Amino acid sequence: MNQSNKINVAVAGATGYAGAELIKLLARHSNVNVVALAHSPGTDDAPMSKFFPQLAGVCDLMVEGVDAILDCHDLDAVFLALPHRAAMAVAKPLLARGVKVIDLSADYRLRDVAVYEKWYEVEHKDTGNLENAVYGLCEHYRDKIKSADLIANPGCYPTSVLLPLIPLLKAGLINPENIIVDSKSGATGAGKKTSAALHFCEVDESFKAYGVFSHRHTPEINQELSAAAGKEVDVIFTPHLLPLQRGIQSTIYVGLNQQNLPAPRMPGSIEIQNAYEAAYKNEFFVRVKPEGATVEIKNVANTNFCDISYFINGNKLIITSVIDNLLKGASGQALQNFNIMYGFNETEGLI
Amino acid sequence: MNQSNKINVAVAGATGYAGAELIKLLARHSNVNVVALAHSPGTDDAPMSKFFPQLAGVCDLMVEGVDAILDCHDLDAVFLALPHRAAMAVAKPLLARGVKVIDLSADYRLRDVAVYEKWYEVEHKDTGNLENAVYGLCEHYRDKIKSADLIANPGCYPTSVLLPLIPLLKAGLINPENIIVDSKSGATGAGKKTSAALHFCEVDESFKAYGVFSHRHTPEINQELSAAAGKEVDVIFTPHLLPLQRGIQSTIYVGLNQQNLPAPRMPGSIEIQNAYEAAYKNEFFVRVKPEGATVEIKNVANTNFCDISYFINGNKLIITSVIDNLLKGASGQALQNFNIMYGFNETEGLI
Amino acid sequence: MNQSNKINVAVAGATGYAGAELIKLLARHSNVNVVALAHSPGTDDAPMSKFFPQLAGVCDLMVEGVDAILDCHDLDAVFLALPHRAAMAVAKPLLARGVKVIDLSADYRLRDVAVYEKWYEVEHKDTGNLENAVYGLCEHYRDKIKSADLIANPGCYPTSVLLPLIPLLKAGLINPENIIVDSKSGATGAGKKTSAALHFCEVDESFKAYGVFSHRHTPEINQELSAAAGKEVDVIFTPHLLPLQRGIQSTIYVGLNQQNLPAPRMPGSIEIQNAYEAAYKNEFFVRVKPEGATVEIKNVANTNFCDISYFINGNKLIITSVIDNLLKGASGQALQNFNIMYGFNETEGLI
Amino acid sequence: MNQSNKINVAVAGATGYAGAELIKLLARHSNVNVVALAHSPGTDDAPMSKFFPQLAGVCDLMVEGVDAILDCHDLDAVFLALPHRAAMAVAKPLLARGVKVIDLSADYRLRDVAVYEKWYEVEHKDTGNLENAVYGLCEHYRDKIKSADLIANPGCYPTSVLLPLIPLLKAGLINPENIIVDSKSGATGAGKKTSAALHFCEVDESFKAYGVFSHRHTPEINQELSAAAGKEVDVIFTPHLLPLQRGIQSTIYVGLNQQNLPAPRMPGSIEIQNAYEAAYKNEFFVRVKPEGATVEIKNVANTNFCDISYFINGNKLIITSVIDNLLKGASGQALQNFNIMYGFNETEGLI
Repeated sequence: MNQSNKINVAVAGATGYAGAELIKLLARHSNVNVVALAHSPGTDDAPMSKFFPQLAGVCDLMVEGVDAILDCHDLDAVFLALPHRAAMAVAKPLLARGVKVIDLSADYRLRDVAVYEKWYEVEHKDTGNLENAVYGLCEHYRDKIKSADLIANPGCYPTSVLLPLIPLLKAGLINPENIIVDSKSGATGAGKKTSAALHFCEVDESFKAYGVFSHRHTPEINQELSAAAGKEVDVIFTPHLLPLQRGIQSTIYVGLNQQNLPAPRMPGSIEIQNAYEAAYKNEFFVRVKPEGATVEIKNVANTNFCDISYFINGNKLIITSVIDNLLKGASGQALQNFNIMYGFNETEGLI
Repeated sequence: MNQSNKINVAVAGATGYAGAELIKLLARHSNVNVVALAHSPGTDDAPMSKFFPQLAGVCDLMVEGVDAILDCHDLDAVFLALPHRAAMAVAKPLLARGVKVIDLSADYRLRDVAVYEKWYEVEHKDTGNLENAVYGLCEHYRDKIKSADLIANPGCYPTSVLLPLIPLLKAGLINPENIIVDSKSGATGAGKKTSAALHFCEVDESFKAYGVFSHRHTPEINQELSAAAGKEVDVIFTPHLLPLQRGIQSTIYVGLNQQNLPAPRMPGSIEIQNAYEAAYKNEFFVRVKPEGATVEIKNVANTNFCDISYFINGNKLIITSVIDNLLKGASGQALQNFNIMYGFNETEGLI
Repeated sequence: MNQSNKINVAVAGATGYAGAELIKLLARHSNVNVVALAHSPGTDDAPMSKFFPQLAGVCDLMVEGVDAILDCHDLDAVFLALPHRAAMAVAKPLLARGVKVIDLSADYRLRDVAVYEKWYEVEHKDTGNLENAVYGLCEHYRDKIKSADLIANPGCYPTSVLLPLIPLLKAGLINPENIIVDSKSGATGAGKKTSAALHFCEVDESFKAYGVFSHRHTPEINQELSAAAGKEVDVIFTPHLLPLQRGIQSTIYVGLNQQNLPAPRMPGSIEIQNAYEAAYKNEFFVRVKPEGATVEIKNVANTNFCDISYFINGNKLIITSVIDNLLKGASGQALQNFNIMYGFNETEGLI
Repeated sequence: MNQSNKINVAVAGATGYAGAELIKLLARHSNVNVVALAHSPGTDDAPMSKFFPQLAGVCDLMVEGVDAILDCHDLDAVFLALPHRAAMAVAKPLLARGVKVIDLSADYRLRDVAVYEKWYEVEHKDTGNLENAVYGLCEHYRDKIKSADLIANPGCYPTSVLLPLIPLLKAGLINPENIIVDSKSGATGAGKKTSAALHFCEVDESFKAYGVFSHRHTPEINQELSAAAGKEVDVIFTPHLLPLQRGIQSTIYVGLNQQNLPAPRMPGSIEIQNAYEAAYKNEFFVRVKPEGATVEIKNVANTNFCDISYFINGNKLIITSVIDNLLKGASGQALQNFNIMYGFNETEGLI
């Protein structure tokens, strides 16, 4: 097979859940050669199938230190599924060499360095590239993504919140104040690291809130909602841990804004549907359901879809959204960004 | 063993999850004789262990039609774990005979008949007894329960919402407006009836909202919060289905009321803790955690406890509570009510 | 896009778990047009996404009665994911028209009509085609599959048993007598039909044997093991229900045969590995692990792989195998058969 | 309350799953004072509810080093839920003081020191007491238990195997050769220690065999079966990990022995039932079901029951048994032993 028309990519952080998921997707992609894989510091080199036996036969590349990627010639693009801080240390030299970077960490998501440093409690070491990073929420930044060299791939929770809220804020249908987001995520969201709190018997048949008033995805949500609203938005965001592996469900409570319709009144189904249609009618991966429909994690698990439904009662609007946190919330959206950057069919590798 | 000092009880609706749970608890109770069990109409008579093999040896009584209870002499008290509507048809003749009734259905929970008939879409056939029914939220109606003949045992979701909110509303610490309740329940909450939506493969590894703006526990929550607040309360209540069997977690979003403290300011941890201490210091089954602590379903599953925690940020308060929906949310609270009515140790059968 | 070089296929029984899985796979296949979908009798016509909302956007075809398939022109091949008995009624007229059929039911698996009629308790109505049916265990019948018009796609349990045992029986390494197969399957294996036994609360956190000495996959296993052994094999096969959705694990207990090696002795790792290498060295979808390795359902769930491991102790051999019951155990193997029949890359649509 | 007629007990190893379960049971027991709790070495002292928040209010004792138990006066009995090796170091001085010991570890289960040292790979440091230890399989050693000072509480897997097999071996109905035991256990069986293999995402929706031909419960099973058979028994025992918390299911494959009945023939249902009735008719915690019945983990989870069922086909017998590994397989049986030792009702604290 002539592989000359293929893009050479590498994945750093291949041994985490998002990294492995990405490799699964890339194995399905018709226009990609995976040429190098790297693990996080402190891990021994080994074939990918040692870390994820399900990939034996699908991807048997060695997973090495990040130097294997930094030293690799003929690289076109690199996906970084590294922890924050580790990501920018790798992105900077790659970008300097002209390699495109899709970063799944938080390092380039927050445009305001001070906000980043406050929430992540580390110094930002690559503010130069930060300015040019494009926030990779595909359906809303597609034009910028096409020509980007550095993608800040959105966080999982933010993706589940931004996709349903941005169109309504832009259309002025909802009140940007007092937005409450009650989100629930499966355990892959907490990563693969061993911890007492993630022992099977702690998670199974249980449920709890965590990170109340303090989760790091809060400023990311606020940044993008503020951009959509044209004014400062400050949401209440409460994540919870679900006894399942993959999936996020967000239940979002907002107030409707009175509209200057024929007679002044609260927006109803028609206005909401119109706003969503304008935003997502041609979007393959966002499925907006009619008012009152049910969306469920099982319908998006193992897919790159975001399903959205909504409920109206007087001036109250409740929106429910679901995504797979590892796909639309991480690796799937990363590959969608890649497809946009290289002009491939946006669904390539993602169906 | 001389059983003359024991209370003779019967359980109607013994073949549902709440009924079976009750029988398990009663088997542990030192002062109870279970003398009759009844199923719902349309079920064939069979020994209890045919419906719940785990009870073989523990309770091998026959489960018969409700007439077996209605015709039973020497009955002191009856627990009704029947569907609404069926419950009042049985309660009425029992009460007329002087038998005490603890009703786990919704039939006697809503004091306003019109509200009942609107939400449950059936005519109330026992308005006479409705007036004397005591809402069996043990920690808040204990005195009335002591002398009650008819207990309306609270709903599962309402229990998880009322226990954390009533003390704060009574103390005037929170704004009775714009209360948002995001609740999540295990699948036993949906009952034992076979349905496509409750197939293992539909619930496992999934999660969804249901009954948005329309769940029948809403008026029950509003009734009791209004009583506590001294004014009309109208909450937003959104239930969700968790992929687990037992347990409810409620995340409750409220605004704090400015207080006339030395200097006017929002209440903080001290005021919240004080209000909770005043209410629950001597309550065995309500455990209020310090600000910022985590409560989890696994810590209350298979117990009659309600755990409560809270989080303050400026004028925003988030409360999280957890109960076992079959115990504190149904049969456990029913037995606690029974213990109060008969002057037994309130924890009898419940540890 | 010019679709003239694509195969036109239909799926009957699209609304069950195996049917839906097949449609997901076909959507990824580069050389397939899905032109018609049919449901089982008694179901109303509706778009595929009504039955499986996760497929909205991926496959929005109408699912109609089987007549829609029987009347369809330009059909090349049909997958039947119907119940036994319903399958042969559809296969017969399709085959008569020259349409190739891949049948996922049991109707054409058992070569001996009497055995079929005894275990399935119905008359076989298409014995003519039965003679020409090819048992679609891809790795062992590939040559016949290439030219087959009718594939009897293997059962899920049999696939997990035959792949590990056939090479060892053919090599004479194991005793064909006293083979014991202890298998465990996820709940999708029981199908999508609503039943009390499949309520979430019955399956979750539980486990049980079923169909002991009576499961219909027993004669299928015996037929193929007998063919491999060259003598009658009669296994003990015990299926169990796992509290998970997808996956089968089989633990197989066999005795080793003494070998005429340099000195007569029991076969060891080398002989077992050699037999497996000879069979599967070039097989993408069968991964044989070294002696003592662990195979786990999670490593094959959502894949078409079969993982095999083995353990030797004296003259005792224990083999463990895992597959995804809906993929290698049903729809994945069906598509693999299709790929073989049409000369496509065998992994097309299956990675 | 006058507590003079209560037994003063302590629990060492209170912070593991079995220890916590024991404390839950002891809290229900009418004749017990829990006077001291100890953790494993390397743990900090803290109240019990810090380790198991579900016990807050139920047991708020401090958990200290084992010295707290060794130094405690007025102790009548101690439960040891410590790892093997740690248990004998504590048991020895307690026994020397006249304190009764119920040891849940393996340290006193194997009568042959050489077997212990081979399988557990440590030297036995208390062979003196080993001789007098009574194997605490309540239904079969009750008389010895009554007067024992040291109970070796059976392992979880062995309990699930011995209860169904001992009566049949003693009656000579089954062949003591070629017994195959395929067992499946929930994740609490692996203990509370954090490990990569017990991460929620590794266990959930998965299943695997482990310890094949090498699990330490094998010699314990063999010892007791040999005693029952009156000859050496050497079973094949394969444990598996279930994606659930509590429960063991064992599927046991044995051959029937021809009987000198009126005409020589294989034993049937009547002979099997008779053997079980003779053994368990008066046993509260062993429930033998009729031939062909289903036993399920959910029917014994959170109980001290062992359910047994069996299936006959020609000269083959399959037995299925289920227990809760933390109760009948550990702490429940330990308390049952305690009740026997002190002459309490055997079900006290266990219903």
